[in-house]
Amino acid sequence: MSNSLGELLVITSFGESHGRCVGVIIDGCPAGLAVTEEDIQKEVDRRKAGASPASTARVEADKVEVLAGIFEGKTSGAPICLLMWNRDVDSSEYERTRFLIRPGHADYTAFVKYGGFNDFRGGGRFSGRITATFVMAGAIAKKLLQLLDIEVIAHTVAIGGVKAKAKGFDEIKKKAAQNPLKCADSAAAEAMSKLIEKVRAEGDSVGGIIEGVALNVPAGLGEPSGSPLDGELAKALFAIPAVKGVEFGSGFAASKKKGSENNDPFAIQEGRIVTTTNNAGGILGGISNGMPIVVRVAVKPPSSIAKSQPTVNIQKMEKASLLIKGRHDACIVPRAVAVVESMIALTIGDFAIRAGLIPRVIK
Amino acid sequence: MSNSLGELLVITSFGESHGRCVGVIIDGCPAGLAVTEEDIQKEVDRRKAGASPASTARVEADKVEVLAGIFEGKTSGAPICLLMWNRDVDSSEYERTRFLIRPGHADYTAFVKYGGFNDFRGGGRFSGRITATFVMAGAIAKKLLQLLDIEVIAHTVAIGGVKAKAKGFDEIKKKAAQNPLKCADSAAAEAMSKLIEKVRAEGDSVGGIIEGVALNVPAGLGEPSGSPLDGELAKALFAIPAVKGVEFGSGFAASKKKGSENNDPFAIQEGRIVTTTNNAGGILGGISNGMPIVVRVAVKPPSSIAKSQPTVNIQKMEKASLLIKGRHDACIVPRAVAVVESMIALTIGDFAIRAGLIPRVIK
Amino acid sequence: MSNSLGELLVITSFGESHGRCVGVIIDGCPAGLAVTEEDIQKEVDRRKAGASPASTARVEADKVEVLAGIFEGKTSGAPICLLMWNRDVDSSEYERTRFLIRPGHADYTAFVKYGGFNDFRGGGRFSGRITATFVMAGAIAKKLLQLLDIEVIAHTVAIGGVKAKAKGFDEIKKKAAQNPLKCADSAAAEAMSKLIEKVRAEGDSVGGIIEGVALNVPAGLGEPSGSPLDGELAKALFAIPAVKGVEFGSGFAASKKKGSENNDPFAIQEGRIVTTTNNAGGILGGISNGMPIVVRVAVKPPSSIAKSQPTVNIQKMEKASLLIKGRHDACIVPRAVAVVESMIALTIGDFAIRAGLIPRVIK
Amino acid sequence: MSNSLGELLVITSFGESHGRCVGVIIDGCPAGLAVTEEDIQKEVDRRKAGASPASTARVEADKVEVLAGIFEGKTSGAPICLLMWNRDVDSSEYERTRFLIRPGHADYTAFVKYGGFNDFRGGGRFSGRITATFVMAGAIAKKLLQLLDIEVIAHTVAIGGVKAKAKGFDEIKKKAAQNPLKCADSAAAEAMSKLIEKVRAEGDSVGGIIEGVALNVPAGLGEPSGSPLDGELAKALFAIPAVKGVEFGSGFAASKKKGSENNDPFAIQEGRIVTTTNNAGGILGGISNGMPIVVRVAVKPPSSIAKSQPTVNIQKMEKASLLIKGRHDACIVPRAVAVVESMIALTIGDFAIRAGLIPRVIK
Repeated sequence: MSNSLGELLVITSFGESHGRCVGVIIDGCPAGLAVTEEDIQKEVDRRKAGASPASTARVEADKVEVLAGIFEGKTSGAPICLLMWNRDVDSSEYERTRFLIRPGHADYTAFVKYGGFNDFRGGGRFSGRITATFVMAGAIAKKLLQLLDIEVIAHTVAIGGVKAKAKGFDEIKKKAAQNPLKCADSAAAEAMSKLIEKVRAEGDSVGGIIEGVALNVPAGLGEPSGSPLDGELAKALFAIPAVKGVEFGSGFAASKKKGSENNDPFAIQEGRIVTTTNNAGGILGGISNGMPIVVRVAVKPPSSIAKSQPTVNIQKMEKASLLIKGRHDACIVPRAVAVVESMIALTIGDFAIRAGLIPRVIK
Repeated sequence: MSNSLGELLVITSFGESHGRCVGVIIDGCPAGLAVTEEDIQKEVDRRKAGASPASTARVEADKVEVLAGIFEGKTSGAPICLLMWNRDVDSSEYERTRFLIRPGHADYTAFVKYGGFNDFRGGGRFSGRITATFVMAGAIAKKLLQLLDIEVIAHTVAIGGVKAKAKGFDEIKKKAAQNPLKCADSAAAEAMSKLIEKVRAEGDSVGGIIEGVALNVPAGLGEPSGSPLDGELAKALFAIPAVKGVEFGSGFAASKKKGSENNDPFAIQEGRIVTTTNNAGGILGGISNGMPIVVRVAVKPPSSIAKSQPTVNIQKMEKASLLIKGRHDACIVPRAVAVVESMIALTIGDFAIRAGLIPRVIK
Repeated sequence: MSNSLGELLVITSFGESHGRCVGVIIDGCPAGLAVTEEDIQKEVDRRKAGASPASTARVEADKVEVLAGIFEGKTSGAPICLLMWNRDVDSSEYERTRFLIRPGHADYTAFVKYGGFNDFRGGGRFSGRITATFVMAGAIAKKLLQLLDIEVIAHTVAIGGVKAKAKGFDEIKKKAAQNPLKCADSAAAEAMSKLIEKVRAEGDSVGGIIEGVALNVPAGLGEPSGSPLDGELAKALFAIPAVKGVEFGSGFAASKKKGSENNDPFAIQEGRIVTTTNNAGGILGGISNGMPIVVRVAVKPPSSIAKSQPTVNIQKMEKASLLIKGRHDACIVPRAVAVVESMIALTIGDFAIRAGLIPRVIK
Repeated sequence: MSNSLGELLVITSFGESHGRCVGVIIDGCPAGLAVTEEDIQKEVDRRKAGASPASTARVEADKVEVLAGIFEGKTSGAPICLLMWNRDVDSSEYERTRFLIRPGHADYTAFVKYGGFNDFRGGGRFSGRITATFVMAGAIAKKLLQLLDIEVIAHTVAIGGVKAKAKGFDEIKKKAAQNPLKCADSAAAEAMSKLIEKVRAEGDSVGGIIEGVALNVPAGLGEPSGSPLDGELAKALFAIPAVKGVEFGSGFAASKKKGSENNDPFAIQEGRIVTTTNNAGGILGGISNGMPIVVRVAVKPPSSIAKSQPTVNIQKMEKASLLIKGRHDACIVPRAVAVVESMIALTIGDFAIRAGLIPRVIK
């Protein structure tokens, strides 16, 4: 379906950047899960502008409201509807440049697909703001995964070519959350910060790489051929605007490796089968193998920059140049970290329900 | 669903490597499309062992049979069932090593998921042979896309770190098909060949990168949030065993770029809106923008190598070492090229039907 | 999915009878369709309590709000979110009888399915009020069908055994809408009215039969085996609480007929193939045949009656007796007419989109 | 999808009446279920022509073959492919009357939908023979349901207006299976037999009613709004050609009843909540309530009769008359009994998996 993701745990996103609200339905969530508005608010706040030095000046209350599906503090089994009203919205600039399709944005493709009837203001359905709906839903998924002791962490591993050093999962958990760039390597984060400031001063923007990790995922999740775990994760991650690549484990580096280097040997540890390396990123044949799931996501630089860009006036069908006004994120990587986590949590939550690991009623 | 891909053009793969057959149902194909067994056979032959110097010695007739859905030379609107019987099958080696889970393969994950009831012989459902079902289905999709003048080409761009030089689409079309490694850069292909021979002599294997290109895809295909074109392509591509990464356009390189470098400026050419660069890989906001769709796929080195590997006997739950006998592909990249094309063709075909670009009856 | 209906035109219902709101997402609606809140309000008003003499005293403003998906008076291609806030809600009686499962209602099955976490007040998700979400969505579907000149009309054909005389479609259209019981036979309606009053006076309730008709549906809609038109209509109609039977054309009467009586002879009229009778109810082999689609729906008597009923206290697991207080519909048939129309319109709209009859952008 | 039914236990039917074969894929069946070809053959034999005095003379070996998904006597978790080759096929009569659309059959609607490209011989995909694919799949579902002690029985309750007396489930189980008309009331069966013979002698055919019962279905199966148990059962049952009506429990009779008569009082029996009557047919609010599921299905008289019928030559677009030659079923009700059972078993099996009642691996 057009705006839904998942098979048994299904989210349907709605709303537009400058419309009345952005919201999401989560259908298929087991009944009896304790969830508060604060649980959801906390996640949403993590992707907030202002939570990061790299981000835009548009600051909204972004107060989550539960419209349905939570009763007496617990999920009721009914579809959950979560919503944030749009408040701080100035559309005048968008009205002025309505027909100047912004390079890198979905203005042109949306115009073609919807015949110009789409709400173009602020990118409408294609705004980064839509990812807040994923985060609201992801907050529910994270609560579900806690039942299985599954933990999902994402963190910044590169910005504009500055790479973070590899760290252990414990260190990542501890440090990334506190770092404004969500980077566990504070020296690298320092360099990233400087780069972002420089780029912002130039009126430009910069991309990066986010790594998502899921710990304690049991072996056996995924459906080969039709619904491989890596494939479904990738699909969900590509639903985040700005994602241009997804790789698991050794990923693109596997293309340079020999089988003897890339194969992860099996071993027994504490009575459990493990691999002694994790080039597979926790997935073999589209199915989780019990090792940490490790996925890296390439995030392109924000398309809105403060530089004049050649473009087209789609109404007049003539050349034009566009200087996007207002303040925009110079780098969305830190804000996207919470979104990456959400997509991973939602996908694994869906598979956990499919596999019967989470009961229909939580007691 | 477990073994189905697509929304309106849906394929369901079945069969096992050492079972009676491998086959596929294509449901939702418009009626009236002229298809012969030869059309399908031709595609299947492209991924055949022996078609490439890098490949295994197992050679099967791999004769495609149409069981249903084609009538008087044309698709009838009924589900199409295509099938190849398995013939040249020696399972004795697999019987002998049944409980020695092969590193890099799905033996372990399949064992866990199916409780050991899965047909393990030759990897069963997880064998590379299953991709022949994708290619059979892809042959139908390619015929469909011809109606819209959409062309899908895949080619080898790297093997084991040896990179092909970038070429124009015309050159790729001309040269890649004829090259045994499906590489359009013959000098690089030469080096790749040598590397494969060296690796094979070592009893090892090597990975690579395949690039898929779809030309003449109209702007407007894709469903943001729920079914982004890039997301669906990635999901289908990850259904190919051995794929560990997928990127579009500038992909992971976008993470190092500035917005001013990565944004593709819009322009008008022959009355049509185009972008003057294609860092987006033909997709903006999950929707095709009318430029060539360019996707790169990381393929890991084949897991079956002629070297002793540490592993586990899953029945006895004890350490073991495994030396896989028989002859195996030292590099599957050249054979996988036809599979990558098929996945792209199937995905775009599905979206073209969703968008109403292909009528339900072809006249 | 749990709360969604449709394949390309997909509705997802949410909200509870005594929660904050009831609402619906319509995803997959083509862009460019002119829709006003009034269009939707008008349909919703038709199922309102008070619109019929048979109905409950709970009267809500039931004001439809558009939260998303309609922009500058037209559908934008984005998911449409429609909602009505709940206002006039007194839950005290429900609190008092929380564990006394009401005979005929879904209290018990919901309790089992959701482990008692469901919002039980007023039946929660199982309240007739949920059908308002179908009607909101159906209003959009009706607008879509107008593009194809397809008209959907439902009317009351029996209440409590009192049957309406068969009428021509023109007469039904003219008379049923104006009749408070939505019955085109005013003499029968009179008798039905008296029966309802009598039954209400007894503290009892009564069932009936609604006939739905879709005119000008082109031949060729429906997917045999997997998605037969009659099957999908039936599924949607059974989503209406209180529906216990669905039949097409001669329906159950066909079981008594001979083939020579029940077969509809083909003929040519004005260059078009028609049948001279319509025992098929417009559907052959799960596909529309171009004749009017005629479906009849058995509606059970409302389960809430003002009589003491034997039941069980599910908390204490002991016998109990229950006298439901408050005022309730003695017959919901007249109010359900708009709901039946909505389900038919939504289902046919979905198939029309699947068949490519409605473009993705309406100009 | 066009030819698939189910959400987690999904069947995809393929093949044509006079093509090479008819077959079915069952995807999503848990691994480890013991199934033999005999288990499936036994069910298929029940719908065989010749198994009933009412049926056609076309007798095929109808030998079931397992092509995939069963390994070492058990389901392997892979998609199961079952198939019967078509042998005794004489298509000459169909060739002769190709463009004379048969009243009551899907010839016309298939012609329109597939633009005349469909395999028309013997009705192609619309032949009753396609229901053999449902029965093959149903055999697997029945084995699954045995794990939960769920039993599905269908039996003939009326033919051509001759009604069977109501019987207890034990008597139905014992008698219906042995009766050639699958009717538990042998006196009624006698009268039905005579009626069928009379009708056959007239060159005519006759319809009837089948009742399906599912015993021991646990309370809590079904998804209100989107996937009600009654709705999904109805959809699956309408996929059987010739079904024109479906009702649950008191069904259409509920339309004549008062709430006080139709409500099923709750009571406690052996520590379990039951209803003392079963007007609901085991389903409340789209969810099973633990009582027997009772569904009745109206079956129209076979459309192929040995009488001249007015029709149209669709190629010449002119009036014609058609006398269908060959021998056909005078009544398909007895053969359809196995099909009704299959559809019920498949639907309940799917819900049982969704509800987590059947594990992914059976041990």
